[in-house]
This record gives sequence, structure tokens and C-alpha cells, in this order.
Amino acid sequence: MEKIKVVQYGCGKMSKYILRYLHENGAEIVGAIDTNPEIVGMDVGDYAGLGMKLGVKISDDADKVLDECSADVAVLTLFSFISDIYPMVEKCVTRGINVITTCEEAIYPWTTNAELTNKIDALAKENGCTVTGSGMQDIFWINMVAMVAGGCHKITKIKGAYSYNVDEYGIALARAHGCDLTVEEFNKTVGHPEEVIPSYAWNASEAICNKLGLTIKSIKQEPIPVTIDEDIYCETLGKTIKKGRVIGMSAKVTIETIQGITVEEETIGKVYKPGEGDMCDWKISGEPNVKFGIDSPATVEHTCSTIVNRIPCLLRAPVGYVTSDQLDEIAYLTYPLSYEL
Amino acid sequence: MEKIKVVQYGCGKMSKYILRYLHENGAEIVGAIDTNPEIVGMDVGDYAGLGMKLGVKISDDADKVLDECSADVAVLTLFSFISDIYPMVEKCVTRGINVITTCEEAIYPWTTNAELTNKIDALAKENGCTVTGSGMQDIFWINMVAMVAGGCHKITKIKGAYSYNVDEYGIALARAHGCDLTVEEFNKTVGHPEEVIPSYAWNASEAICNKLGLTIKSIKQEPIPVTIDEDIYCETLGKTIKKGRVIGMSAKVTIETIQGITVEEETIGKVYKPGEGDMCDWKISGEPNVKFGIDSPATVEHTCSTIVNRIPCLLRAPVGYVTSDQLDEIAYLTYPLSYEL
Repeated sequence: MEKIKVVQYGCGKMSKYILRYLHENGAEIVGAIDTNPEIVGMDVGDYAGLGMKLGVKISDDADKVLDECSADVAVLTLFSFISDIYPMVEKCVTRGINVITTCEEAIYPWTTNAELTNKIDALAKENGCTVTGSGMQDIFWINMVAMVAGGCHKITKIKGAYSYNVDEYGIALARAHGCDLTVEEFNKTVGHPEEVIPSYAWNASEAICNKLGLTIKSIKQEPIPVTIDEDIYCETLGKTIKKGRVIGMSAKVTIETIQGITVEEETIGKVYKPGEGDMCDWKISGEPNVKFGIDSPATVEHTCSTIVNRIPCLLRAPVGYVTSDQLDEIAYLTYPLSYEL
Repeated sequence: MEKIKVVQYGCGKMSKYILRYLHENGAEIVGAIDTNPEIVGMDVGDYAGLGMKLGVKISDDADKVLDECSADVAVLTLFSFISDIYPMVEKCVTRGINVITTCEEAIYPWTTNAELTNKIDALAKENGCTVTGSGMQDIFWINMVAMVAGGCHKITKIKGAYSYNVDEYGIALARAHGCDLTVEEFNKTVGHPEEVIPSYAWNASEAICNKLGLTIKSIKQEPIPVTIDEDIYCETLGKTIKKGRVIGMSAKVTIETIQGITVEEETIGKVYKPGEGDMCDWKISGEPNVKFGIDSPATVEHTCSTIVNRIPCLLRAPVGYVTSDQLDEIAYLTYPLSYEL
């Protein structure tokens, strides 16, 4: 058995879960990268609350970390868009290090950022490694939905609605959701109709179509600002969002396909009130109709578990950019993260 | 494109759905077998209500049908136990015909009927074909559950409860559930503790363990008769079951594993009251906890869709007896059932 060696690239909220999951699943943490001066120099075991030091310190020198270890995988938990993660992905891939990322666009970026995705794909192929995006969407918005579709005879429509607490995913995501903007500012920026920024539902919906072999005829997204009628504290922004201002966004994506199946997904990302839970509800219309879902899913834990449990699939995958709908079936890790897998 | 050729072996309630699904998905029906004198000689297109004749008549001469066509697959919709379907499976397999069956024990029969399963496995390998069991359990009691488990970090328990209407699955299943017995008769036969007859939950639970790589330490089943406090008409038996008599069975299967994960499944098969619907509820305990399920699943349609949609996986599978937890991922059929798949 040889432990799988992992570099944690980005030490924010998600990485604390991921580092612990990696450690408890027997992976070897060989490096940790972040630019936050408050944590640079900390032992990653201390940072993740493992109760022991791992002898690996968080460093802000990505090139040095990546050069001085022989990582199999970089877990990249930064940003929401491919254009933002490109420089970090490039650093890993040119060194032959496989990349798995929570970056939401990365779940299926072939059309929303074709240029950089193709560039990553070519670089990964040149260097014999694989890049993929994963997280909550992987199982619960894509692969599980496709599996349930596999139990149906005729489908006319697939409809999903899911929500998540913007306050749990860091500053990049909060900004992408227009948090603390006025509705006017929202409509001029995040919600501007002439410059649609693909929501996570856009990429996840395209992934479902790819998985089912559907050809997209049209795709549209309607961004709707979600406001609040009372002040609410946003932990990520470190401030109170005043009533009437934007606490998040509902984005409804509608895809029509050549095969006549409509895929409609609504993703609702907002700052939650105390006690509010996530939703993840699906309905397939056809023969038969199917209503299914997860009750108040623990989106953060699922995201981080899925990232870690995907590592064996990532290492078995062909080289290049391989989206999660094309990876091998994900599995609960009964055995350690090692090359005996 | 060459159409996949299918023999329907058993023309009961389920076959009407399956024949239509096969036809609408572009398969070639090349034979249909049943011993019911009321339907022998009927065109299978008429029988399945396709609105057209298929030129294939239902025959009670299985050997003749199987000899005189070159089927790729036999869809066997008879009985609930391996010992009952063995003669039919043997007829197909010795002719090199792949078999997919709704027979409930067939979903994972390796320990509940090791002898005949090994015999089928050896025969299938000798003759270059594959045998599998499928139906509602395949996706909704096994593969979907394993996929959701793939989104979890630590699991201590997997618990499922599902129900189905005995009245929709024919006479063999109704009898196996003790319908119309007295509680005393039930306890002496179906519910007899010294001679446990594995319920569908037993086989499905073992399949989950196999899929997750868990080693079973102990397995027990508690059969509980379900009675009714008012008369109820049982269509399958063609009679009214008097109040106080058995209308079905709840079987609770509990598996303990070496890995410390408990798998507990309760399957409730009974004659439904008017308006009563199926249940399919799951809970995974661990990090995180997950509650998920299907609202009133259309068990018959899912069973039949899953059988048909599984055919490409069956044809791609290695030879031998391959349980559905080991098959390729099932997919909704966007393309015809042909050898271009």
C-alpha cells in the first residue's frame, strides 16, 4: 500500500473538512498553500484541528511547495470560476499533478469557458494528468439524477431546485451572488441580462445533458435577486446586510434539447436565517413521474466528502479535463486512500 | 445499427410494461413464452396493447421458441426464488442467451442459493453469456444508496424502508408473502423462525454490502405478518381476504459488518388499501447524516424501466452471473436498443 499524496491548495473554510477527511482516510498531506498571512506558517494538522501535527506548514509560496513535493493530487478549493483558478491549475498540471477542485464552474466548463478549459485539457494531456471539478453537484445535482433517470422509461422534463447558504462558502461565492448589493446594483452587475454569468445550475444542467447524451438546443438563465425584509448578519462579509438589500440570488436555468427533454434547475444561494436548511428537490416528469430528494442536505460535508471520495476515480481517469459525469462511479471509502485501491 | 433481439419469458402483469418499453426503445421482440392457455397463441403486440401486431405469437413451448430464434437477451419475469427460475435460466444459458430477471432473489443470490447461483455462473461462463437480476431494487435499494454513501465521510448505519403492493406482482409473490394465511399459518410457514426464507431486503442488503466492499459478520431477518382489521379484496388471489388474516409481510433484515457499518432494511409487502402508495425512505447515519428517498415511487414502472434500461449493461458485462451492483452504471435510453450502443 502506498498512500496517496495530496497538496491542499487553498486553506479556507472547506479545507478544514477536506484535510480532516483526507487524513482520516489515510492520505498523506504533503503540502498546503494559502496566502492568508494569519495562517501561513501554521502546521496543517493544527490548522485542521486533527489533534496532531502533520509536519507540513501552510505556505504562501505555491511554486516552492509544488516543486518540493511529489504530490499525486492537488485539492484546489479556491474561487468559483475557471478564469480565477486557471493560474493555479496551470501550476499543478504543468508539474503533472492531478487536480480536483470545488470551483463551481469547473463541474462542467466546456461551454462557459471553452478557451481555458481546452487549454487545461491540452496541458493535462501533455503532462499525463487529469483535472476535474466536484462537490455537492457531482452526486446530488448530476450523477444521482442521471441514475434515477435510468429507472424511467420516458422523460419529458427534469426539474431541480437546490439551495445553499452563501455564508458557508467564502467571500468569492458571496460576491458572485451579489450579497449586500442593492437590487439596482445587482441588476447592473450580477443580474445584468446582457452579460449572463453562468450560475452553478448552468454548469450542472449541462453536465446532466452530457451524462444523458442530450444535445442542447437552447439554454437560458434568469437571475433573480433575493432580498430580505429584516437585517441579517453575513458572517462571510463580516457585516450586517440591511433590509431591502440583496442576500443572494436565485438563478433559473432552462435547457431545451433536440431529444425533447427539458432540463430546468433553480439554484438558490443566499444568506440563511438562523435555523434555515438547504433544499435539494428533484422531479422527473415522464413515465413514471418521480419525486425525490434529500432532506436538508449537509451541503458542506457532502461537498468535502465527495471531493475526497472522488480521488480514486480521478487517479483512474483518462488524462485531460474529465468532468464528473464522465468519471467512474464514486464510492464510499471503505479502504484507505492508497495505490492498492 | 442492429436491433437487440429479446425473448419475453413469462407473460404476466410485468411483461405488458416490459414489452411496450422494449418496443418503444427499438428492441426486436423475437419470442414470447407463457403457459397460460388464455394467452397462448396471441400476437405479442396485441397482448401488450402496442396497437400493432408484431408477428410473434405467445407460445408455451419454450424449447421451440428458444431454438428457433437467435435472441440476445431473455427477459425472465417469473417467480421470486432462484430455485423456481433455475430450469428456465438453464434453457436460456445453455443456448448462450443472456438473461435478465425480475426474480427478486436473483438481485444477489450468492449466499441464499449458493449452489444454483454457482451452477448458473459456471454454465453462463461455459456458454459465453451473462445472467443478472434487476428491478426496483437495482437503482432504488442498492445503486442509488451506494451513490449517496459516496457523498459521505463516515458511515455507521444505513437504514432503508420500502413497501410495495403485493397485488401488483402476481401470484408467486403473493404466496411468498403469506397472503390470506392466518397469523398461525403464517408463523408456521412463511414466518417460521427455524427456516428463514430470505426476503427481498435480505438479498438487497447483501448487495449493498458487496457494492460498498463490506464484509458481513452477521445477518438476521425478522418476519412480521401484516394483518388487516377490515376485509380487503386481493386482485391477485381473486378473493377477499377476511379481516384478521395476513395481507402481507414486513421483513426487517439487520446486517452487522466487520467494518462496523450496520445495514438495516425493512421491506413491507402487503395488499394496499385504495389510495395507499409505496414508500422508499433511506437514512444514512454518519458524517453527515443523510435522509433521502422517493415520494410514492411507481414501483412497477421503475421495475420494468430498469429491466429494459439495464440491457446495454448486461450485454457489456463480463460472462457469468453478474449482480446489478457490479454492472456498469445504468442510463436512461436516449438511443435505441441496438448494437450501436
